[in-house]
Amino acid sequence: MNQIPTKEDIVKAHDRIKNQIHKTPILISISLNEIFGAELFFKCENFQKVGAFKFRGASNAILSLPEEEIKKGVCTHSSGNHAAALALAAKMKNVKAYIVMPRTAPKIKHDAVKGYGAEIIFCEPNLKAREEALQKVIEKTGAVFVHPYDNYMVIAGQATSAKELIEEVSELDYIIAPVGGGGLCSGTSLSAKYFGNGIKVIGAEPLNADDAFRSLKEGTIQPSINPKTIADGLMTQLSEKTFSIIKDNIEKIITVREETMIECMKMIWERMKIIIEPSSAVVLAAIAENKEEFKNKKIGLILSGGNVDLNNLPW
Amino acid sequence: MNQIPTKEDIVKAHDRIKNQIHKTPILISISLNEIFGAELFFKCENFQKVGAFKFRGASNAILSLPEEEIKKGVCTHSSGNHAAALALAAKMKNVKAYIVMPRTAPKIKHDAVKGYGAEIIFCEPNLKAREEALQKVIEKTGAVFVHPYDNYMVIAGQATSAKELIEEVSELDYIIAPVGGGGLCSGTSLSAKYFGNGIKVIGAEPLNADDAFRSLKEGTIQPSINPKTIADGLMTQLSEKTFSIIKDNIEKIITVREETMIECMKMIWERMKIIIEPSSAVVLAAIAENKEEFKNKKIGLILSGGNVDLNNLPW
Repeated sequence: MNQIPTKEDIVKAHDRIKNQIHKTPILISISLNEIFGAELFFKCENFQKVGAFKFRGASNAILSLPEEEIKKGVCTHSSGNHAAALALAAKMKNVKAYIVMPRTAPKIKHDAVKGYGAEIIFCEPNLKAREEALQKVIEKTGAVFVHPYDNYMVIAGQATSAKELIEEVSELDYIIAPVGGGGLCSGTSLSAKYFGNGIKVIGAEPLNADDAFRSLKEGTIQPSINPKTIADGLMTQLSEKTFSIIKDNIEKIITVREETMIECMKMIWERMKIIIEPSSAVVLAAIAENKEEFKNKKIGLILSGGNVDLNNLPW
Repeated sequence: MNQIPTKEDIVKAHDRIKNQIHKTPILISISLNEIFGAELFFKCENFQKVGAFKFRGASNAILSLPEEEIKKGVCTHSSGNHAAALALAAKMKNVKAYIVMPRTAPKIKHDAVKGYGAEIIFCEPNLKAREEALQKVIEKTGAVFVHPYDNYMVIAGQATSAKELIEEVSELDYIIAPVGGGGLCSGTSLSAKYFGNGIKVIGAEPLNADDAFRSLKEGTIQPSINPKTIADGLMTQLSEKTFSIIKDNIEKIITVREETMIECMKMIWERMKIIIEPSSAVVLAAIAENKEEFKNKKIGLILSGGNVDLNNLPW
């Protein structure tokens, strides 16, 4: 797919992956509604397969590729949720997955990816080593590269989460989605445009990794330099494809402080009894830092995932 | 109610509290099914109001009492989930709640109970001080005492969790429930008898607080002496009413080690992305220590609650 996903593309993506993904629940919390003075609807991708929304995009990418093209396998670079997502989606399609990961990634992440039957190729933890390792894999195996977010099929897959949210909850004023590389946020903005009725989409980002905020301000993609945030899924910068969608379709980016994210993460654990990863907390933090703006509004919040190191919590 | 709840009593209890409680979800986990080689259905009382099944029993007790009797309020002694449950149920009925709590209970527990508008009466942390304080409250206020578990209306309320489970999941071989004072376990055993089809009920208990196991063995209620367990909800001993039901209606008690509970608690957090309290982990631990016995069985597990001190986790 070489153009921004249309409404039909997202409908087709959803049909394609429906039997393979979980239709994740939408939870509400009366006590959080009271605290924030708004009506909040949490779309729980922490309950998605592999514990993150990434499985939607990876599934759509793999299921869209022609049999002929995919028979030598798929590959990607990621140390996080996209790695596990692509590994599982490949396993379900019975093709081989090659994942380039930095040697320094936590063992628990290697194990998850290995558990899904993928082959891991270790590299030094820098951009150059990663790209060289990936290039070598492609040359040697003929595997197709599935980028974590700079890929329209991946974006169309991520869009299905907001599609489900909009189909289940009517008349939302806002949807807030985390922004890392922009796959989830761009997909969400497309679904809001195609399936919603005037829903405004807001991207939420750590202040300490505010490249998307700066990119929108400058009008060109700004690099993410030395991001220091607990939201380990939101450190990457936008790509051509995600930026081009986001700049035209979202209301704005809200940046939030680390303390607010930690507080909101703990609040969701305590009040809702669900486990969300730090990158998910950014969406509630955006409301917490802008209470007046969201007062009495009906807001969908996309919780991106629930993969957390339980031995290393941020409080 | 002065006799063991009948089938009709539990049906009535359920109708009575239906609009006030959450019908909690039943979750499954493919990876846990694979690990344990069984079909597991988790009844999630961690998503119940106040974060625990206790709200069912407290609601039923308060809604069953005649207006005349209840107008001076209700009272109890508890430092845990029953305190919050009674406080909220009383608030919803617009009556006053008096809760006797040990001075040493964590501040977070006081705050929860106060947040529901109850009056807390502090006492020294021993049985004599607690009973004297409660007696004084009753004399002074005329409030009705609602025991945490030695009360048939409370038991009938707790029974509604298993009733919902049985109505939603057919042909269960077993239901495993935690045993502390026995309210949940006795109620579960009644629902299995009345609404199930040959379901065996098993009580799960920490080895370090094995009073129920010893009680069933001896045929008389055995005291819980110096229980040292992370399962803070399971330290109490059985009462006349709960023992009389449990001894006739459950298959057996399984005792489990602390390490297994910790491991199972973490496993549920990691794999299912839900927060359960240590007392809930005992049910999966019972399977973990007896894998052969439960192989290929269809098993309901009652997760009692999700109230955990996130700053003091057992791993």
